[in-house]
Amino acid sequence: MKNLVLASSGSVHGSEYLEYLIPTIDKLYKDIEEILFIPYAQPSGISFDEYTDAVQEAISTLGIEVKGIHEYSDPKEAIKKAKGIFVGGGNTFLLVSKLYEFGLLEVLKEVIDQGVPYLGTSAGTNITGLTMQTTNDMPIVLPPSFKTLGIVPFNFNAHFIPADKNSTHKGETRETRIKEFQCIESTPVIGLQEGSWLRVKGDDVFLRGGEYAYWFENKTVKLIEANTNLKA
Amino acid sequence: MKNLVLASSGSVHGSEYLEYLIPTIDKLYKDIEEILFIPYAQPSGISFDEYTDAVQEAISTLGIEVKGIHEYSDPKEAIKKAKGIFVGGGNTFLLVSKLYEFGLLEVLKEVIDQGVPYLGTSAGTNITGLTMQTTNDMPIVLPPSFKTLGIVPFNFNAHFIPADKNSTHKGETRETRIKEFQCIESTPVIGLQEGSWLRVKGDDVFLRGGEYAYWFENKTVKLIEANTNLKA
Repeated sequence: MKNLVLASSGSVHGSEYLEYLIPTIDKLYKDIEEILFIPYAQPSGISFDEYTDAVQEAISTLGIEVKGIHEYSDPKEAIKKAKGIFVGGGNTFLLVSKLYEFGLLEVLKEVIDQGVPYLGTSAGTNITGLTMQTTNDMPIVLPPSFKTLGIVPFNFNAHFIPADKNSTHKGETRETRIKEFQCIESTPVIGLQEGSWLRVKGDDVFLRGGEYAYWFENKTVKLIEANTNLKA
Repeated sequence: MKNLVLASSGSVHGSEYLEYLIPTIDKLYKDIEEILFIPYAQPSGISFDEYTDAVQEAISTLGIEVKGIHEYSDPKEAIKKAKGIFVGGGNTFLLVSKLYEFGLLEVLKEVIDQGVPYLGTSAGTNITGLTMQTTNDMPIVLPPSFKTLGIVPFNFNAHFIPADKNSTHKGETRETRIKEFQCIESTPVIGLQEGSWLRVKGDDVFLRGGEYAYWFENKTVKLIEANTNLKA
């Protein structure tokens, strides 16, 4: 049974990295002593080691060891043997490019489908959608494809913020950008606000964290209330 | 002699589309009766015809006829014969994909290098940089390459906004995103605020519009004052 926590962001305002998710992570990784961390999204260009250390520190109270996938000579085997997986945020283009480079998308999907607990934040959440076409990130590298894991039958927009009606800025809003995407493809998109996550258990997909989410389909948007099951 | 106006945006707060640029466009297209408009970036998914009509209306006081490139059976020939060119904003991925699909990048570079007056706004400005890797747009289509015209020896970030120190949002700032890019490639990047444009005349590249710009190089940022010649 699929078992995922897909968070909009790794942090929320006023607390430390992952702090707001600690009780959720504790339940997700119940009885697991070691997780595999995939640091490929490299936020602010930090190294794989630095990023892995930051995760280890952030969840230190849970008594779980964090091993970076870059510490293994065979990353596919590392995924196959993982008891729990965490894919952190950063740049989605970088993350997806590395997953293609090392041929890891298929095996990642396999183990997630088999029920290995998976935590994604931001870019790590984006890749569980059908494609990465609704990321906010800059295209700093060119992946061979935008196709991602398709664990859920829609796309994500992480760190979603509704348009500020009083803004004087003329750059496109998130809503405009997502609607431009839906002029090209009919894939639904969920705009997940910071502090929100999806809790996937088998076919159930609950919106958690207490915030509304924004659901874009057929170029219209509707609000989803906290605790809604998106399966319905 | 190269002759370009490269604007951050097509509009600024409180005025109509292109209104703030009318005196500049008037001088750029001096004595030109007809310009070629490239509507491929399709902001909000509007049609090529609608977009071309909007431009025609916006510059109607100048007595210049606007022809959309989609009205020609041979877009390459249309570019070769154009007396003036305007590439409008929208989605940079869409624009660049179309330019590759129709094989237009080379001929566009040729005529710009020969001195055909060129106006770019937003996405139309981005494509005159070395690559489109520092766009803010969503990757709604996958172009075969991110390489663009390289009319100027740097990249653009259009609609640039400096970080708001009071923000509670945890999504990456523009500055962080651009620095992530510069962890991968050493290309300098100019952050052009709305209301600003570069006036390129031969090798001179003046910052116009009265606003500061932000220059990113070697992962550091410095302010550029209005009217600076970037050639220096």
